[in-house]
Amino acid sequence: MKSREIRLAARPQGAPKDADFEVTEVEVDDPADGEVLVRNELMSVDPYMRGRMNDVRSYVPPFQLGEPLHGGVVGRVVASRDAGFAEGDWVLSDLGWREVARVEGSRLRKLDPDAAPLSTALGVLGMPGLTAYVGLLDIGEPKEGDTVFVSGAAGAVGSIAGQIAKLKGCRVIGSAGTPEKVAWLEELGFDVAFDYRQTPPREALRGEHVDVYFDNVGGDHLEAAIGAANQFARFVECGMISRYNDESPTPGPRNMPMVVTKRLKLQGFIVIDRRDRAPDFFRDMTQWVREGKVRYRETYVDGLENAPRAFMGLLAGDNIGKMLVRILNTA
Amino acid sequence: MKSREIRLAARPQGAPKDADFEVTEVEVDDPADGEVLVRNELMSVDPYMRGRMNDVRSYVPPFQLGEPLHGGVVGRVVASRDAGFAEGDWVLSDLGWREVARVEGSRLRKLDPDAAPLSTALGVLGMPGLTAYVGLLDIGEPKEGDTVFVSGAAGAVGSIAGQIAKLKGCRVIGSAGTPEKVAWLEELGFDVAFDYRQTPPREALRGEHVDVYFDNVGGDHLEAAIGAANQFARFVECGMISRYNDESPTPGPRNMPMVVTKRLKLQGFIVIDRRDRAPDFFRDMTQWVREGKVRYRETYVDGLENAPRAFMGLLAGDNIGKMLVRILNTA
Repeated sequence: MKSREIRLAARPQGAPKDADFEVTEVEVDDPADGEVLVRNELMSVDPYMRGRMNDVRSYVPPFQLGEPLHGGVVGRVVASRDAGFAEGDWVLSDLGWREVARVEGSRLRKLDPDAAPLSTALGVLGMPGLTAYVGLLDIGEPKEGDTVFVSGAAGAVGSIAGQIAKLKGCRVIGSAGTPEKVAWLEELGFDVAFDYRQTPPREALRGEHVDVYFDNVGGDHLEAAIGAANQFARFVECGMISRYNDESPTPGPRNMPMVVTKRLKLQGFIVIDRRDRAPDFFRDMTQWVREGKVRYRETYVDGLENAPRAFMGLLAGDNIGKMLVRILNTA
Repeated sequence: MKSREIRLAARPQGAPKDADFEVTEVEVDDPADGEVLVRNELMSVDPYMRGRMNDVRSYVPPFQLGEPLHGGVVGRVVASRDAGFAEGDWVLSDLGWREVARVEGSRLRKLDPDAAPLSTALGVLGMPGLTAYVGLLDIGEPKEGDTVFVSGAAGAVGSIAGQIAKLKGCRVIGSAGTPEKVAWLEELGFDVAFDYRQTPPREALRGEHVDVYFDNVGGDHLEAAIGAANQFARFVECGMISRYNDESPTPGPRNMPMVVTKRLKLQGFIVIDRRDRAPDFFRDMTQWVREGKVRYRETYVDGLENAPRAFMGLLAGDNIGKMLVRILNTA
């Protein structure tokens, strides 16, 4: 079976560009025993993928040059030699960035298309949702009445983190990069939402006393949050998207001594370490979404060949909510 | 009774200088009911005092211009109207930087000069010792076999933190600012000790994998520790002495994104929040000192009028171990 896939052609220097990616057609073999053939339909692009494009061993190995990229994807079984899966089943796998994936059944999760829209498996009910859930609740430990500041608040993770904070009785401040995003945050019930391209975070946080900072951005957002932090504030260090395209290291917060004097806790985390929380997350989030207490938005880009552009757009902040690519198979 | 005291004459800009302090003679009244008159003998200068000289409300109010400074001090009761104290008793109070203190009995702790040298109440068995104990054990959570890096390791806190880490079965790396200090760290059993004025921390830590960083210094030490950190490392943010004399904010670590990817925890703390640990600390540390498992050194400066110089010297790293001032009363 023929399949197009996106490969890493060059390691991006700074912001990724078209030439860092290439589309290649390959032949996919029939599944062996225990394997399943999946036609991918909807794939995720996520900020963490930028780090994997560098030749640096981090919590996961880097993507390899000349190899297809991978990441979360929803697809449909076209052939199965695993008794757990039948043709037509919807499944979630980690073999995105390609039209057809041959994958061991053990690496698939079956999805029920009647339980929730399939796209949610990549967003609010998937990895980004779990990230928001464990980050905010387990590291942020918000208490009723706390002030919670979320940067990148109109993104897939930030928008969920902010809404969970509202559910927990917190005052919630969100930053985003366009007036449209800010308007959405206001719709979602954020108490304060600001466009950091108009108002620097430091200015926007003047007079605020932040108990929990959910950091998706780093940089001047992080510095501003340290400056506005209450004593004993918790910093959920989830991501630093402002830094991912840095070509050389840029200076960190100038007010680090306040980490001592204010007794701050800054804690980094990666969602794959917290899979034990998935059952709680799934139970709570399913209910919150059903009751309309947590809402989500998705931004779609069409065509596998446009996945690199979707990814570049994600890093530039083009998305509201979850950024997804409809694969529109030619396979 | 006449008493000389050191007042804050001006808020230091950058490094404190002589003119920021003044010695004044005052008349101390007889103690009222419940009060005690103490002739101070031995006072502590500590890095945290630098922060209190700025006009910034931190975890404690700033020192006031024209008012005497204060801080830990050991003295002897010369008159008492508190039934708990008698003439000749040795006591610890927070009213240092003066020859004679009139103080409520409730603010004194009686010391037994036969149990331990009186100076230890200001060092290994006092606030700096407790700081090392709760910081290392409760925030650092060292496990046997961990690599623990201590900056400012020849100071009052760092030297204790490093020795506790050795007692817990860790490999311990210490930084200090002179060859003499480095030699002392080696005597204390540190596995690696380096002079950061000769070898930048980043270079000294090359090839090391740090599980716990006990930070007394901040700046390039902190950046180097983030770079050398293992996944899930704990950073005990105790102090950032390299930054206390900054006249303008200086950039923070350039590698902050590693806080996320390595899942680091950076946690600031102030010992006054952890007084609940004092009984455990006192029990353990008394035994460790008695058994020679924790050793300490002290650096003395003579004369109350030289206390400002002792303090300036402390910030410049003139001390090995605890910096103390013998008051040599004229009162």
